[in-house]
Amino acid sequence: MKLQLFDQQVYVQRRNVLKQSMGANGIIVLLGNEDSSMNYKDNTYLFRQDSSFLYYFGLDVAGLAAIIDTDTGEEVIFGNDLTIDDIVWTGTLPSVSEMAALVGVSQTRPYADVKHYIHKAVTGSRQVHILPPYRPENKIKLADWLNTSLEDVAGRVSLQLVKAVIAQRVIKTPLEVAEIEKAVSISVDMELAVMKYARPGTREYELVAKAHEVAIANDSRLGYPAIITKHGQTLHTHYYGNILEEGDMVLSDIGAENAMHYGGDLTRTFPVGKQFTTRQRELYDVVLNSMDHAISMLKPGVRYKDVHLQACQKLAEGLKAVNLMKGDPAEAVAAGAHAMFFQCGLGHMLGMDTHDMEDLGEQYVGYTDALKKETAVFGLKSLRLGRELEAGYVLTVEPGIYIIPELIDRWQAEKKFAEFINYDVLNTYRDFGGIRIEDNFLITDTGSQLLGKYLPKTREEIEALRG
Amino acid sequence: MKLQLFDQQVYVQRRNVLKQSMGANGIIVLLGNEDSSMNYKDNTYLFRQDSSFLYYFGLDVAGLAAIIDTDTGEEVIFGNDLTIDDIVWTGTLPSVSEMAALVGVSQTRPYADVKHYIHKAVTGSRQVHILPPYRPENKIKLADWLNTSLEDVAGRVSLQLVKAVIAQRVIKTPLEVAEIEKAVSISVDMELAVMKYARPGTREYELVAKAHEVAIANDSRLGYPAIITKHGQTLHTHYYGNILEEGDMVLSDIGAENAMHYGGDLTRTFPVGKQFTTRQRELYDVVLNSMDHAISMLKPGVRYKDVHLQACQKLAEGLKAVNLMKGDPAEAVAAGAHAMFFQCGLGHMLGMDTHDMEDLGEQYVGYTDALKKETAVFGLKSLRLGRELEAGYVLTVEPGIYIIPELIDRWQAEKKFAEFINYDVLNTYRDFGGIRIEDNFLITDTGSQLLGKYLPKTREEIEALRG
Repeated sequence: MKLQLFDQQVYVQRRNVLKQSMGANGIIVLLGNEDSSMNYKDNTYLFRQDSSFLYYFGLDVAGLAAIIDTDTGEEVIFGNDLTIDDIVWTGTLPSVSEMAALVGVSQTRPYADVKHYIHKAVTGSRQVHILPPYRPENKIKLADWLNTSLEDVAGRVSLQLVKAVIAQRVIKTPLEVAEIEKAVSISVDMELAVMKYARPGTREYELVAKAHEVAIANDSRLGYPAIITKHGQTLHTHYYGNILEEGDMVLSDIGAENAMHYGGDLTRTFPVGKQFTTRQRELYDVVLNSMDHAISMLKPGVRYKDVHLQACQKLAEGLKAVNLMKGDPAEAVAAGAHAMFFQCGLGHMLGMDTHDMEDLGEQYVGYTDALKKETAVFGLKSLRLGRELEAGYVLTVEPGIYIIPELIDRWQAEKKFAEFINYDVLNTYRDFGGIRIEDNFLITDTGSQLLGKYLPKTREEIEALRG
Repeated sequence: MKLQLFDQQVYVQRRNVLKQSMGANGIIVLLGNEDSSMNYKDNTYLFRQDSSFLYYFGLDVAGLAAIIDTDTGEEVIFGNDLTIDDIVWTGTLPSVSEMAALVGVSQTRPYADVKHYIHKAVTGSRQVHILPPYRPENKIKLADWLNTSLEDVAGRVSLQLVKAVIAQRVIKTPLEVAEIEKAVSISVDMELAVMKYARPGTREYELVAKAHEVAIANDSRLGYPAIITKHGQTLHTHYYGNILEEGDMVLSDIGAENAMHYGGDLTRTFPVGKQFTTRQRELYDVVLNSMDHAISMLKPGVRYKDVHLQACQKLAEGLKAVNLMKGDPAEAVAAGAHAMFFQCGLGHMLGMDTHDMEDLGEQYVGYTDALKKETAVFGLKSLRLGRELEAGYVLTVEPGIYIIPELIDRWQAEKKFAEFINYDVLNTYRDFGGIRIEDNFLITDTGSQLLGKYLPKTREEIEALRG
């Protein structure tokens, strides 16, 4: 196999920035991922390296770990060389020391030595900085290495390291933006393939098949499970068994993760037939208008939470115009009534992870010490990004309208927000489904830039594709 | 989402058979799987339920566990019902008790109760039968429930339960054979799509894309990572970055896992151009001849280890005819010299798992107390199936010839098997690659039956497809 890497200096510089921001302050442990088993040990899912490990050490290979000593500057990659049995079964690979050299690391050791290295640091009363593990095998390893219980590992996470990594990864360099653009453009081709294939009688999974085909044929994968559904009101449905019928809309939320593991995240909603129905058309334009307004607000210094709230207000205004909401839209949004239709957030950071760095904690990625994430308010608790924007952020803008019968029934029984929601009218939309439109943007010094190729977005453009 | 299930009685009867074979003897714990995280907790791989859980309880849903009390006959499914937040994000699902009813189970409890249930059994000095966990999260849970250490969980596995489950699952019922046939036929279509798409200049990953497209468009997935490579000598390579060139062969080892989670496992090797070269043609026919001989031996009462050894002898005879081997073929195989060319086993059990029940232990699935698996002999240690065949077994037959330069260099330096291997000739084949041909068979009362649609297999048939 061939490793795909940036220039060695990219990784050296990234680590130097991290060392400077951490100061002389103990050791940093960055854990690579293992293969994950599906139904028996040797039958594994497609390997996905940890994103922070990739960011600092680049090596897209299972079974590695790395340590950076911030006092001495020493960097060590831990891993085991292949045996002849490995070569017979999985082919040749450079040795660990050859791979380490490719990313500017001169010291390597067998994997089992991580434990001794960490024990020595702990014995010497040095700080050991770890990131939060999201895979159980890594949690098991950290508990062993830190000589603590599984329950205690979360308490040992270094907030200083979390914040340092986020501060660095959140600003995308031109090199990274170029990779994200490639991924978004592949995602555009995936969306086009899905849109072109959908016809009355098609099964949702046939569309999923097209998305995978285009991604893989471009040396990519799906960065997250495809959401391709006629029931777009279910925000993250992964059931693909329905048959498309004339009159249905398809919501297609898909994104490529390219060979360098940067991702796109797009959504389009389109009619199965040649045209939207009147109701679909009306609400599509409400969502699009909200989106365009949000995009116009994007620039450094603006809080994304305010962009979200403004987008919600545009949704509420549009919903009032079609008689689904009533009263003052600003008051409705302040009260949270719009969350009947838009239960989630306007967008999130995007990078190597679709929800970039979500493993490090949404509070730290999307918020600040001064701006805490709302964790109890329906709607706002699902807004992953609230903080003031800075040049170099890459994010999604993805407003939507989702008609969820179970939510209507629950809120109507409670007479919740009856002053803002026209339940009588809403009940005639019970089978409407959902609409989401999503694109990806780079925050520039003066505003924002759409990433990737343009994907038809207006109602007219979408209908032209369906012709 | 809609659950895909066999008739309720299928599961009831399977559990009754298991209860009878275990006797009144404590409780059986069958753990379903969780979602597995890729790069952050909520970004998960495609869910794969545990096969034994599927076999006895059918429910293809994450986060379930089940207990069978063999003393009282009581059966309980443990799981948590959806919250309104779950419904907003992932859609509706029947309640746990509704799902349990579909598979004939009347008792359900919240997931957290598994722990109490097991503690009570342990306190009452009752036996707790578990299967070997292959996922780290399930190992963590079992250690907690059994109040033991992670290291100790393996020691608590119930060999009685392992053997009872294998004895039952190893004999495929007509219902299961029908599912396997569907999966094999989809696999045939995948192979045909790959073969039709390959041309000089094609990237391997473009072929992988075709395989996925066909699988997913048939409501299936790939049961194991695709092996589609011009370097067929690497038995399980998952690198797909090479460009196909005239003169190369492609080895395509792929299989669909259908909606009911039964699988196919096929391999074809074909020329990138219209025809095999002379050397490719010669060795192709050696492999095919070995395969045909092996197939002719399949019937109840025959040890698969003997089929393997006979297939190896046919390979050795063919390799001698083209001057790659020398001496007496039977002696060469007895000595293990053929393993220079055929490093692995002739086949394995096939069912819900590609290597069926490999999680339960190869020794118990493929061998018996009387016939132990060879664990130290190169070649034989990779033979997953050795035992006497019985009607109802489903298995693969997959001989091959693999030219591995690293292995040539190592053995030649040691002068290993110099009496059987013509190293001078072999070194002129260093870039040859590998050939494997694989089909799937049911053992019948009198012989065997090819499963699924016929996929072109002879040299002439393959070349006709390339035309």
